[in-house]
Amino acid sequence: MTLRTLTVGLGDRSYPIHIGRGLLARAELLSPHLASRRAAVVTNTTVAPLYAEAVERAIAACGATSFRVVIPDGEAEKRWETLDRVYGELLAAQADRKTVIVALGGGVVGDLAGFAAATYQRGVPFIQVPTTLLAQVDSSVGGKTGVNHPLGKNMIGAFHQPLAVVADTATLDTLPDRELAAGLAEVVKYGALGDIEFLGWLEEHVERLRARDPEALSRAILRSCEIKARIVALDEREAGPRALLNLGHTFGHAIETLEGYGTWLHGEAVAAGMVMAARFSARLGRAPESDAHRLEALLRRAGLPVAPPRLPADRWLDAMGRDKKNESGRITLVLLDRLGAATVEKNAPAAELEAFLAGR
Amino acid sequence: MTLRTLTVGLGDRSYPIHIGRGLLARAELLSPHLASRRAAVVTNTTVAPLYAEAVERAIAACGATSFRVVIPDGEAEKRWETLDRVYGELLAAQADRKTVIVALGGGVVGDLAGFAAATYQRGVPFIQVPTTLLAQVDSSVGGKTGVNHPLGKNMIGAFHQPLAVVADTATLDTLPDRELAAGLAEVVKYGALGDIEFLGWLEEHVERLRARDPEALSRAILRSCEIKARIVALDEREAGPRALLNLGHTFGHAIETLEGYGTWLHGEAVAAGMVMAARFSARLGRAPESDAHRLEALLRRAGLPVAPPRLPADRWLDAMGRDKKNESGRITLVLLDRLGAATVEKNAPAAELEAFLAGR
Repeated sequence: MTLRTLTVGLGDRSYPIHIGRGLLARAELLSPHLASRRAAVVTNTTVAPLYAEAVERAIAACGATSFRVVIPDGEAEKRWETLDRVYGELLAAQADRKTVIVALGGGVVGDLAGFAAATYQRGVPFIQVPTTLLAQVDSSVGGKTGVNHPLGKNMIGAFHQPLAVVADTATLDTLPDRELAAGLAEVVKYGALGDIEFLGWLEEHVERLRARDPEALSRAILRSCEIKARIVALDEREAGPRALLNLGHTFGHAIETLEGYGTWLHGEAVAAGMVMAARFSARLGRAPESDAHRLEALLRRAGLPVAPPRLPADRWLDAMGRDKKNESGRITLVLLDRLGAATVEKNAPAAELEAFLAGR
Repeated sequence: MTLRTLTVGLGDRSYPIHIGRGLLARAELLSPHLASRRAAVVTNTTVAPLYAEAVERAIAACGATSFRVVIPDGEAEKRWETLDRVYGELLAAQADRKTVIVALGGGVVGDLAGFAAATYQRGVPFIQVPTTLLAQVDSSVGGKTGVNHPLGKNMIGAFHQPLAVVADTATLDTLPDRELAAGLAEVVKYGALGDIEFLGWLEEHVERLRARDPEALSRAILRSCEIKARIVALDEREAGPRALLNLGHTFGHAIETLEGYGTWLHGEAVAAGMVMAARFSARLGRAPESDAHRLEALLRRAGLPVAPPRLPADRWLDAMGRDKKNESGRITLVLLDRLGAATVEKNAPAAELEAFLAGR
């Protein structure tokens, strides 16, 4: 595949998303941001042995120096203690305000290293080099950074846009099947919330995607990033339409919080959460029941869980009550009007929601 | 004293600084920012019994509700563990993105609550209500927020501008003498770095300031805020001239780091640090020796320490090497050209500095 470049249009903070095979080695994608600087490559114990050297060679080819900060792998690491360790290593290496953080890894590395960049010495620049499908289609784009709090997911964070996103699709070759499927959940999300044609294309190509057909994956990543970049450019700080990107996430975050971070992969929780959102939309008479079935069937074919864990309604409501989208104690939900069109509902009907969660 | 209002000019993030006696009770200063919202009053164990009720009454008079988050007093609290406790209380109270954080207290409360506001749910609005002289003339203005790291002061933080600053000079009535003097160090700093007339006025009025003459204090606060607001408006993120505000701070931060946060008050460390900066400037032939003596005499009259702790040069250099203003391993210092005019020196002469620190 050739290199494709999109732009996230945010005025003087606009930045490119580069998508293609073999991009890790292409120093010219990094050099505009690194020339004569120092880079801190933040990565994890799984990704480091696979890709860190390639990135460090590309950095050196820019005439920049680098050092490496390696954190353990896993969603459970997306927490303060790990962040503090990154701060400590940056300080020990005397990283300064001109040091560029390069986040090499999946969503946890990108969110955590991005938040470290947002807050180290009140903010240093960073580059996202996502190595999972989920990170390439979602978490590396849009500037959301942060860590979890024991009382709620992503509760501590900042908006901090990267200088660039470099998505090398060859890194997906080493991705475990379960993580590939988790990334497909977010890909399906873009179709469900805003592009019915793309959803139809996904229904045709889901087996090719699971088999890691490079052309199919590249097309899915490109289209996902196009949709996300458009929405982020409209609403960087989620005052309005950006909340649509949270389709399935209010239910999904509750699953992650209630089951313990890392038990469900984020994409798995989003998959089950999207099915819940579609079913609840149908129950309210807002969307056809058949759309909920169609979405569920696609997610199932993508290898994803579609049934939520069985938990008492009050625990669901308690966890959902702590979602960041909520205002004034009312629960905000993204609901489907139909597949391909979603709406942010700022005041989800509480009694209906409770009955739905209770299985009544 | 009548109410005086300055504006920090930062485009759509511009905000007022209100200065005057009895402002805590004046709901009309809060209401533009609080109408029909919820407020979290973040304060400490010393300030809460004195002023929290007055602020909460003013909030209620705006038609807003509030809850209180109280942290222990002291510079040692400006750390992650205390911040995490604030996050936990915000989450437990189901604070959402529209909740306004009201930082009621000195520099530690303002910096920590401001950083909580910068990062809770990726950012909520906040109002500074400074109750110490240091906070009223310096830390509440300009949007610098953050906490200390064991390896360096203010190393974790964000730029996050408040909606407003409400400086009630009556709160200084209860300030311990030592803290009043610490605030005067920053007041003297504004004269030393940029306004020789103001410095002369301070030399005439330093005894009245220490005696808490309301007119003298108000004038000192107003002039300090004017100078700071002008510099912040020029350079919000400290790319250039804002670094001048760090006169005495590279040496001062090293004192705080080496002696343990809280042993020296920040203003005390800045006072000794300014004398060091002035003496080092004289040693380099950049400023007259007499200016260093004049600055030292004024700070001494203000009740401040002017001699640094005796420490080996390598420990000084190590601590100073971790200052945020440094780039590429070179130490940045703010040096005096003369009293009333300072320069940011990005490449302090290392051998001279080492000899100076070694007392040679």
